[in-house]
Amino acid sequence: MSDVEAKAFSIEVLREFCARVFLHFGVPKNDAIEAAEVLASADLRGIDSHGVARLHSYFDMLSEGRINPKPEIKVVRSTLSTATVDGDNGLGLVVGPQANRIAMDMAEKAGSGWASVRNTNHFGIAGYYVLKALERDLIGWAMTNSTMLVAPLWGAERMLGTNPIAIAFPGKEEPPIVLDMATSAAAYGKIEIARRRGEPIPEGWAIDSEGRSTTNPDDMVDGGALLPLGSDRDRGGHKGYGLAIMVDALCGVLSGANWGPFAPPFALRQEIPKRSVGKGIGHFFGAMRIDGFVDGDSFKRQIDDYVRVFRATKPAPGTNGPLIPGDPEREMEQVRCKKGVPLILPVVEELRDISRKTGISFE
Amino acid sequence: MSDVEAKAFSIEVLREFCARVFLHFGVPKNDAIEAAEVLASADLRGIDSHGVARLHSYFDMLSEGRINPKPEIKVVRSTLSTATVDGDNGLGLVVGPQANRIAMDMAEKAGSGWASVRNTNHFGIAGYYVLKALERDLIGWAMTNSTMLVAPLWGAERMLGTNPIAIAFPGKEEPPIVLDMATSAAAYGKIEIARRRGEPIPEGWAIDSEGRSTTNPDDMVDGGALLPLGSDRDRGGHKGYGLAIMVDALCGVLSGANWGPFAPPFALRQEIPKRSVGKGIGHFFGAMRIDGFVDGDSFKRQIDDYVRVFRATKPAPGTNGPLIPGDPEREMEQVRCKKGVPLILPVVEELRDISRKTGISFE
Repeated sequence: MSDVEAKAFSIEVLREFCARVFLHFGVPKNDAIEAAEVLASADLRGIDSHGVARLHSYFDMLSEGRINPKPEIKVVRSTLSTATVDGDNGLGLVVGPQANRIAMDMAEKAGSGWASVRNTNHFGIAGYYVLKALERDLIGWAMTNSTMLVAPLWGAERMLGTNPIAIAFPGKEEPPIVLDMATSAAAYGKIEIARRRGEPIPEGWAIDSEGRSTTNPDDMVDGGALLPLGSDRDRGGHKGYGLAIMVDALCGVLSGANWGPFAPPFALRQEIPKRSVGKGIGHFFGAMRIDGFVDGDSFKRQIDDYVRVFRATKPAPGTNGPLIPGDPEREMEQVRCKKGVPLILPVVEELRDISRKTGISFE
Repeated sequence: MSDVEAKAFSIEVLREFCARVFLHFGVPKNDAIEAAEVLASADLRGIDSHGVARLHSYFDMLSEGRINPKPEIKVVRSTLSTATVDGDNGLGLVVGPQANRIAMDMAEKAGSGWASVRNTNHFGIAGYYVLKALERDLIGWAMTNSTMLVAPLWGAERMLGTNPIAIAFPGKEEPPIVLDMATSAAAYGKIEIARRRGEPIPEGWAIDSEGRSTTNPDDMVDGGALLPLGSDRDRGGHKGYGLAIMVDALCGVLSGANWGPFAPPFALRQEIPKRSVGKGIGHFFGAMRIDGFVDGDSFKRQIDDYVRVFRATKPAPGTNGPLIPGDPEREMEQVRCKKGVPLILPVVEELRDISRKTGISFE
């Protein structure tokens, strides 16, 4: 954030603006509020690439009629603990929360609930959904596939999205353990930051358009690809690639959505894939009742113990020791709740552009 | 294998010998056969560290009465789709298959089934269990925690096992996609091989006892630790660490087993942890009915398409292009079914030692 002049906005202002933009396109009020909440959670938690920075993409897609503002979200197949949800090409920010509720409702009745979702669009941060599960005292899982950016290990082209996995476990006195991770070695946003600064990227993040390892961020952007978690064969790049396939199969293949290189783009400027093998992109949500396995209170006390034991790990030289998954996002949320969300000027300009085009005031 | 003289044994000989050793300790016949099958599957699939190479550890633990040969495996809590299984300190090779069946049985009734298992021991390769799910036309999941070997990112000591994740998706004409991966950057077995050869290990695999990155395999073995998948902060070491915690929470905390540095050892020579926070180690099995989400036949055709599309990826320079998860193990299985399983002499000596001590003939 330090490299581009930034201005701070209160989260309430941003959330309100997003909600009004969605309303402008005919998104029903409760859906618009919820969609804005999903975006706001990304900005609060410091995942800047998935918050209001993406509002212009949603705006474009809604303007062009590429996303359905009033989807009829339907369960098209189900058992006691599984369901396939068709999102009717709605905003992922609307379909996601609804499908997540379907999974959680099943879990409360059958012990666990698993929803694979097709015909949907980008759903924001996976972490949002697992935090919602914690509110209902459930262990939550969330995954999504997405537009291709990542090469398989030993591949020379983009074939997979950054396909994140999120899961959360509640503590009693300690904060929850909240994992929310892309299955690529690094986020695309980090490539963009390095590019803007004219700095090289670390070895292991990306390949160029010929499939060669590169430290030049331009090489990745100009037809190259991100590498999967693990980066190369020696360090386990086949594992990150395998995890990305797992997410893709659960979200895309299992629901009847598009998968792999055929996942449709989330922004107008992105190329439309050559083939369609399903409907929209796909998500996968899971929820499990803790007391379907063990006493809920003793589970939470054990998680407290877990967190304390891991915080007490002997630190590696030059560090303060291990963090608990979710720590950085939680700290960021505390800061941004008080001090606001710093937006870089290009994002502020995009929001102003939306304001001009819709007549919805901003600032 | 090329560095130590090796001799090939037919898989039938090895399987029979293992089964008779288990029988020798009073393991019931069907359990002994199944336990031997789990070990044999590791040897066939080329995961040499988890096959008969580990029989001597099981032998020691059974000899010392540290593992119960005739466990009463019980479901101690359940809902329609979840269960906690107490393995009564049995062989993981016996408890694992039984708990996996419990998960699969639930899935057939409720759409999905999830079993968290405590009071168990090392269960062999995670891949075995998801292959069993494929036989029942289910998507299988398997995880286990294990004795500490891996440091958290920014930690300087062993706190986590190599905590593997396996999942499998069936194809129709193409072979299944079978992911079976440790959440560490590299397997401990690779450190041992480098050590035997006197060769350095790649950067990113391990730290020494002070938490410093090292390329000397002795440093890892002498009080150092493996690094999580992703290796360092830049390349996503926090992600591998987070995945290892996820596995540990699902297997250990959720079942009431030991977790983190308190997971008991699988071999006599290993140190017993200072604290006990549960019973034994833990596993986690899942099974999902494909037709709980989508038509089974169309799913399998899509997986066929998936496999073909990914095999057709433009290859990176110097490679033949991406593999599909499960390819190397499947190829190894074909070779070893025909040509036998090559065992290094130290392993052959261990088997001969068991033979002498039990009177069960070998070779």
